[in-house]
Amino acid sequence: MRLAELSERSGVSTATIKYYLREGLLPPGRQINTTTAEYDEVHLRRLRLVRAMIQVGRVPVATVREVLRNVDDYSLGHTIRLGAALWALPQVPEPDEEDEFVLAARREADELLETLGWSNARQLTTVSPAYRSLVVAVAAFRRLGYEWGAELLVTYGKLMHEVAKLDLDFVDTQPSQAEKVETAVLGTVLTEPMLHALRRLAQEEESGRRYGYE
Amino acid sequence: MRLAELSERSGVSTATIKYYLREGLLPPGRQINTTTAEYDEVHLRRLRLVRAMIQVGRVPVATVREVLRNVDDYSLGHTIRLGAALWALPQVPEPDEEDEFVLAARREADELLETLGWSNARQLTTVSPAYRSLVVAVAAFRRLGYEWGAELLVTYGKLMHEVAKLDLDFVDTQPSQAEKVETAVLGTVLTEPMLHALRRLAQEEESGRRYGYE
Repeated sequence: MRLAELSERSGVSTATIKYYLREGLLPPGRQINTTTAEYDEVHLRRLRLVRAMIQVGRVPVATVREVLRNVDDYSLGHTIRLGAALWALPQVPEPDEEDEFVLAARREADELLETLGWSNARQLTTVSPAYRSLVVAVAAFRRLGYEWGAELLVTYGKLMHEVAKLDLDFVDTQPSQAEKVETAVLGTVLTEPMLHALRRLAQEEESGRRYGYE
Repeated sequence: MRLAELSERSGVSTATIKYYLREGLLPPGRQINTTTAEYDEVHLRRLRLVRAMIQVGRVPVATVREVLRNVDDYSLGHTIRLGAALWALPQVPEPDEEDEFVLAARREADELLETLGWSNARQLTTVSPAYRSLVVAVAAFRRLGYEWGAELLVTYGKLMHEVAKLDLDFVDTQPSQAEKVETAVLGTVLTEPMLHALRRLAQEEESGRRYGYE
């Protein structure tokens, strides 16, 4: 297809597509003559992915380039490639390892993974930004003086494992390896706001059931 | 307690506490003489709440003031007061009602609430920002050309209902009405990053189990 059709099918303006091409976020089309290039379904899919990261996920252009480099690195195994693509997304800053709350939160996080039996995730704790995020979030809660039993985090963890199985089931419905990796990145960017929204709606529902609207 | 002790117990500097007092985010202490004021546990709790919203939740000062106004409005019923406080938190922009994807997403969201039997939440769809967020998120996914069965959203919804029950159980452990409302606001700001982190860790775990690390 020509540039105009690519624009029409993706809903992205030709000026924006040209900008993505210049920035290397979209591979060049097949040059037919000096002024015309031909694009295909792979371009369309990539364009949607870039669009979602930038517009919905508010991911900076340099980061998008980094994520795509990992998505396209066929030398990596599937899980690692998936991880590498997701890990290039914006993450929380490094926790301060001198902080007593951070040290306690790290112990709590380690015990949690142990209790949940997440032995694969435990192997990744030195490199995984998700583990770092968990430590930061637990430390923030503890610093505010909130106490909860270890059981609560375990129960949240089990529910999130069910969510993760659904996530991966959906990724697995995608036909090609390339589409699987793209869908995993998109899913992370797009379904987080959706899950938030569902959680808040469920809170409203549950609050109404428990307390009514008096 | 004096300002110095309030600062020590909260981990917030005296300069920052004075700034919050000037901005009306913290009620004034009981004036003992012209230079000294006395603070109590209510100040400490409020200070932690303000700190969490500003530092962890990155909520703007004007919004924090708005949230606190609702937290302190005893004329509202419990559910409504909870909702009003949470609804003052930063939210997604209004969806464009002329957009075909938004209209389709709204129908999909309405059917979802119907299937889930969330009749309380359905009564709030005209005012609830959570409902608006759901519509925006579903529209974004559809615009990218992703298709999924209605069953997937229902399953995510059921899991989020389990999460919401845990959330409200935790809120209910708080002794006073004021603490319940404060905990609900804090929980929303602080546990969202925690649930994200757990979800991503669970994805890593599940990916390792399904595909290994080859």
